[in-house]
Formats: sequence, structure tokens, C-alpha cells
Amino acid sequence: MPASRNVLALDIGGTKLAAAVVDRGGRVSAAARVPTPHGRKLDGETLWKTVVALLDRFTSGVGATSFAGVGVGCGGPMTWPDGHVSPLNIPAWRDFPLRERLKERFPDVPVRVHNDAVCVAVGEHWRGAGRGRANVLGMVVSTGVGGGLVLGGRLVDGRTGNAGHIGHVVVDPEGPDCECGGRGCLEAVARGPAVAAWARSQGWGRPGSTARDVADDAARGHPVAVAALRRAGEALGVAIASATHLLDVDVVAVGGGLSQAGPLLFDPLEEAFRRHAGMDWARGVRVVAAALGQEAGMVGAAALVLKGSRYWNAD
Amino acid sequence: MPASRNVLALDIGGTKLAAAVVDRGGRVSAAARVPTPHGRKLDGETLWKTVVALLDRFTSGVGATSFAGVGVGCGGPMTWPDGHVSPLNIPAWRDFPLRERLKERFPDVPVRVHNDAVCVAVGEHWRGAGRGRANVLGMVVSTGVGGGLVLGGRLVDGRTGNAGHIGHVVVDPEGPDCECGGRGCLEAVARGPAVAAWARSQGWGRPGSTARDVADDAARGHPVAVAALRRAGEALGVAIASATHLLDVDVVAVGGGLSQAGPLLFDPLEEAFRRHAGMDWARGVRVVAAALGQEAGMVGAAALVLKGSRYWNAD
Repeated sequence: MPASRNVLALDIGGTKLAAAVVDRGGRVSAAARVPTPHGRKLDGETLWKTVVALLDRFTSGVGATSFAGVGVGCGGPMTWPDGHVSPLNIPAWRDFPLRERLKERFPDVPVRVHNDAVCVAVGEHWRGAGRGRANVLGMVVSTGVGGGLVLGGRLVDGRTGNAGHIGHVVVDPEGPDCECGGRGCLEAVARGPAVAAWARSQGWGRPGSTARDVADDAARGHPVAVAALRRAGEALGVAIASATHLLDVDVVAVGGGLSQAGPLLFDPLEEAFRRHAGMDWARGVRVVAAALGQEAGMVGAAALVLKGSRYWNAD
Repeated sequence: MPASRNVLALDIGGTKLAAAVVDRGGRVSAAARVPTPHGRKLDGETLWKTVVALLDRFTSGVGATSFAGVGVGCGGPMTWPDGHVSPLNIPAWRDFPLRERLKERFPDVPVRVHNDAVCVAVGEHWRGAGRGRANVLGMVVSTGVGGGLVLGGRLVDGRTGNAGHIGHVVVDPEGPDCECGGRGCLEAVARGPAVAAWARSQGWGRPGSTARDVADDAARGHPVAVAALRRAGEALGVAIASATHLLDVDVVAVGGGLSQAGPLLFDPLEEAFRRHAGMDWARGVRVVAAALGQEAGMVGAAALVLKGSRYWNAD
């Protein structure tokens, strides 16, 4: 891999498709994004064409071989490492062979696909809030709650690529049903739509109000909105206490849209974490906001290619 | 390390001190055990002399250099990897430099000390219920609840050597206070003394009755004893559901004294696990009884020496 070449990074989510050039130092340039197409009649091939058109903006003129590789973060679930993706929020793709399709377009360089929350965790470890630490749990709190796990300086994948997925840690065994089929999962309480739904159930907002509206109203002091963020923050604190006891990490980096709510989310998170984290190795963990913002996923996706021995341990 | 030499393995707990010769295939021979001395006046040096006398049984005649190394599992907490131990149930040792003392007696071979529950997990991965699997959580349910974690075929230590310590995963945020200072930890519900105390609080037994008495009475159908094991089993199932979502392992191996209670513990465990494990990668995990019994810790301690690249990643 010539030292001068950059990585083409792709971030595929239910709201937007983003691509960017990332250099060997993790710096992002020439980013582009388009809304993710939706619609009942949208099929997988049409969506793929949208992705191809986005990629063409970067390869036209310079060619596919001008990149050291292609790194992709995509909404889960997916099969790993073969990268057949079935993103919850992109119904047009079910078992879509994303990695194979990209390999056909980029046959001469590595193409690596991982869960978008894993890519955020990798990005935060490499260039963000976990930089210089060997053991980092990176989290995304957004439409879902996911995560990724770096231990001993290397990404841990687990059996199916889902290690670090904190969203289904149980925060209340008698809590709300979760879409996974379980009960009382962190995600069932703290994902954005659950935060908004709970606030609405308490008389706040209108049908269609979102977690962002909750955060906005909470910042203005609306008591139900404040309570909704408190409830989510406490659930996050409980789950993070469990995770830090079990994982023995240095840092937990919390990103994703809901984490933008700031102290209204992080203060109750910290309180619950302190209440439940008793052992020294858990109390010593720093729980911080992710540092890279919206770029974290693309930086991490690029690192799958650029720092393969650390972050990619598969074929 | 000559191929013919065996490892001297040591298992230091609050009830007994055990030592054995373990060969390169993980077979245990020539085991010996003595009760752990206790008493308010017992000091650390006197306890150390008991350990030395136990070791002398193995080295007298053949000499210290006849072993490929010394592997030790010791009750936690401890500093890792330097092995200053402060076992909760051995008050005579607080910050006792166990590894250094052993190195002085065995200056020419590796001496490695890890948490006893970590050694059980290593033993179960190498030769027990997790054999042949890359991702294994090993658990000990006894006077405390601990564990160790193998991911990608290698022991994961975390920042302080406590990765895999499932005992302080929160199973009920409103649950009983835990000795760690937290609340609702698995250990606060499922450790042997907590099981016995709960049963006594419901009118069962006498002061001094133990978890073993609970298990015996439950086997005879005593309803309070059955309920006490059910409560512990459910807490284990919730914690294991959280852990399998977060860790993405192949197998969870549950050992320790309380696990001897069999289906009266494992049936409610499995029910709670099924209720809370929703994601495919968690539902696919096998939760099984540990296979090596009382020898697991010594087999694992030996593996710290014999399979150092897999299980020992420190100085």
C-alpha cells in the first residue's frame, strides 16, 4: 500500500449516505453526503445505484486504484466479516451483499465493512476521546444504541462481529419490551424514539415529535422533557456501570445524536454510574462525550483499512 | 522450556490452599491441599509459611528447577500483573507480594499469578467446556461471583486484569446493596452467603446455615430453598444475557460451588436468559456447567505458564 494513498470511507445510515477521503493521519477531506432514499417501492438495486453515484464523485477522473482501500460503516445487523447487510432503518437492503459489490468495483484494494457503531468506537480509539488508551468502549446513542470494543489496543469482534454492542445490556429486568425480543434492554429505554415516546406518554409534545425536540425543550426547562432525558441518562449510567465492571476499560466514549443533549443527559448518567460502579477498576473509568462528532464513523471506517492489524482481524 | 517439564500449580482460596503438578496436556497429578489457616492473630508471614510447606512437598528431592514454571490462581482483589494480593476471604494478606515471594523461591522459571476466577475461565477454555471455542466467558459462583474472558482465542485482561468479572453487572438497579459500594449487583444476589441470607430472611434454616444447606434442602423440595435458588438463578440469567449481548461469546461456562445445585439453579437461569437474550448472537450462546470441577483453577493456573502467548500478556 503506497504511503501516499488515502482511503475512501463510506458511512451508510438510515438518514444519510456519506463518503469522504481520509488520509493516513485520520484527517477527513472532500466529504459528500446525500439523503438515504426511502419509499415502499425502493428496491435494493436502486439504493445501490445511489451509493455508486456517490462513490463516482470520488473516483471519476482519478480511478478506483488511487485509493489504498475502501472502509465502510453500515447500520446493523450484518454478517461479519462477509458484509451482507440488513440495516434496521434501510428496509430496501435485506442480506444485501454490500462488501461483495464494493469488491467488484474496487477489485485491487482491501474493502472492509463493519457495523457503524463499531466504526465510531474505532474512530474514537484511533483519533478521538480514547486516543492513547488501550481499552475503550465506544458507544452510539441515536435511533438505536450500539457500540464497539477495543481491548489491549485491538478491536475485539467476538464470534459474530457484535462485541461491544451495549444496547441490549439489561438495565431493568421489569422494564419495557425491546424490539430484540428481550425486556428491559438499554436500547428499549434510551434510544431516541423511546425517549420521545416516553415524553409523549407523559403529556409532552405531539405525534411525530422526536428526541431532538425533547432535547430542545429540555434545554428550555420543560419538566417532562428534562425527566425524559434523566430517565435515559440513568439507564445509560446503569449499563455503563455493568459494562465497565465486566470489561475493565480505561475510557467510555459516548457519541450519537442523543449525546448532543449535554449535561441534561450526562449528569444523570454520571449519577447513576457513580451509584452502581463500586469496584475500583470501574470507578476509575472516564465516561466522556465522543470527540469526533459526525466524522467518527468515517474515520473509524478508514482505520479498518489503514490500521488493519489493530482493527481488522478477518479475511 | 524443556518439553518434559511440568508446571507447579497453586490455588489459593479462603477455604483451602491446593497445589498440584500439571503436565503439558493439562492433566493434574500429585495434588495436595490443606485448610487455609485463619484466626485473628494470624499474620501474613505465618500464612506464607503454610504455602511454602505445601510447595516443599513438591520440590523437596526434585528441586525448584524441575518445573517449567509456577502458575497461581488466588482470590481477588489483587494488583495485576505484579501479583500483590488482598484476598477478600484471607484477611491476613493485604497487599501481600505473593508473586515476588514465589519468584524468590523459583528464580529461574516463570511465575505467574492471576485471579482465581480468571484461572477457572482459562482452564475451561483450554481443557473444559469451552475447549475448541474462540470466545468464552468463564464464571465462578461461590462465596463471591467472578469470571474471566477469552476473546479471539486469547485471555483478555483489561486495564487492571479484571476483564470478565461478571459479579458486579447490575441485575436490578433497585436491588440489594453490594459490598462493592454499588447496588443490585449480581454478586449481591447470587453469591452463596447472599442466597443463604435470603433464605433465612424467609424463615428457612438457622443462623450459620450455608448455601450448601440451601442446595441440600432445595433438592429435598423445601419451598423456600427452591425459591432461593430460583432467585439466584434468575439473577445469573439476567447478567448472562447482558454479558452475551456485550461480549458476543460462543460459550458461557458456569462453575463454582453453587453451580453444583444443578437444574434447581440452571433451569431458572436458562428461563431468565431466554427472556432477556433477544439478539441472535446472544440467543446462540451455549450456557453450560463448567466441566473441570475443582481442578479448573489449577489447570488454568498452569496454562498461564504453558500457553503464555494465549493466556499471559504481561511481564
